[in-house]
Amino acid sequence: MSSTAVPALDKTFQILDLITDSSQPLTAAHIAKELGLPRSSTHNILQSLLSKHVIYKDPESRFYLGSYLMYWAGKYEQQQGVVQLFKDLIVQYPVLLQHTVTLSKLDLGEVVFLACHESPAPLGFTFRAGVRVPAVFSATGKAMLSTLSMDSIKSLYKDAFPTPMTSMGSRILPIWATELAVIQDSRVSLDDGQLRDGMYCLGTYIRNASGNAVAGMAVSFFCKESMSLNGLRSVRY
Amino acid sequence: MSSTAVPALDKTFQILDLITDSSQPLTAAHIAKELGLPRSSTHNILQSLLSKHVIYKDPESRFYLGSYLMYWAGKYEQQQGVVQLFKDLIVQYPVLLQHTVTLSKLDLGEVVFLACHESPAPLGFTFRAGVRVPAVFSATGKAMLSTLSMDSIKSLYKDAFPTPMTSMGSRILPIWATELAVIQDSRVSLDDGQLRDGMYCLGTYIRNASGNAVAGMAVSFFCKESMSLNGLRSVRY
Repeated sequence: MSSTAVPALDKTFQILDLITDSSQPLTAAHIAKELGLPRSSTHNILQSLLSKHVIYKDPESRFYLGSYLMYWAGKYEQQQGVVQLFKDLIVQYPVLLQHTVTLSKLDLGEVVFLACHESPAPLGFTFRAGVRVPAVFSATGKAMLSTLSMDSIKSLYKDAFPTPMTSMGSRILPIWATELAVIQDSRVSLDDGQLRDGMYCLGTYIRNASGNAVAGMAVSFFCKESMSLNGLRSVRY
Repeated sequence: MSSTAVPALDKTFQILDLITDSSQPLTAAHIAKELGLPRSSTHNILQSLLSKHVIYKDPESRFYLGSYLMYWAGKYEQQQGVVQLFKDLIVQYPVLLQHTVTLSKLDLGEVVFLACHESPAPLGFTFRAGVRVPAVFSATGKAMLSTLSMDSIKSLYKDAFPTPMTSMGSRILPIWATELAVIQDSRVSLDDGQLRDGMYCLGTYIRNASGNAVAGMAVSFFCKESMSLNGLRSVRY
């Protein structure tokens, strides 16, 4: 975790992330020990978060995320008008309800998921709103990147191409350029296991009135059969 | 704003609330001036929030809420399984899509809204997730309170009955007890303009397998005609 000029906020982010990522509810003592933080400052931060309903405490003094986070997050969603469009779309096309469908936007070299409709059959991969992944590995990210020039894309990754997340993630740039050209033609992108082994996502982008790609949408599914895989590859190449 | 033992968090909450409630995007200088905070600590907090994607900055250096809030809020929603039930219900009963429908839960003497489906015709009142109102004025709050004993309810408001939010909010306790008895019989509650003048909400509660009211649901609408008002009153008395 990078540290900033406000140590109390660094600790707060660590605490909120720990509560978010923990499968078990945690006590103050657990939180302090897990993060290596002093008990007194952990206690003070937890009390401050409690008073704002950012977290809440059960009768056994275990901490959970609280309702006030939805107040802030709701405003973020309102700002992103495309989230409401996405929700309306899912409801209007019942066929989509059967699938895992995600909405995301490009933020420099990453995509951030804005909304997700989960299929009734779980994928084993949770596209949580707010999660970020390198754009080059995700179907929506590739779709949105395909609307940029190769120079713009190179400048996004000038420091380094992101570290692959799976064995399918290790592309070299020339192959990647070919892939983008195909997406430019077809407007359809494919993540064939680059976010998670065995999970496939077909994506496209949504343009605003000015023609800029403002968001990406993808449908995700598991593909264990190589037959189906071969079928999908024809979309890409 | 009450202050806690962590001044940096108090300031952070003020800043996030100001950005949330402002109809205009704000610069760092605006934020510092509006809240009466030192520019340097405002700058440091904004930088720390930026680095975590809790806020973001546009090219004109104006601040907006950021995508990371959805990561934390999403976990809160996951914890509240009833939110997913609510979303599934709305989708399964298209008649509900035409109305403003809210889901909330009781937290001591308040209700906190967990989810809202907004009617295509706006109500002029935004039930944002995370917003809290005194339970005694809201349809869902009354419905959930009606499952408690009058002694439990009195202990929730032992300090004072909440300040009315509209001219319709000034009930005295004996009348209120009669209203609760009617809700116990009918399982239907009415807020006749107690949250907002002219807005009516019909509510009920959702019980879990143990029979406890874990959430409330309400349908809200505007009622300008006294005829309709008289019709509604018959639900209550």
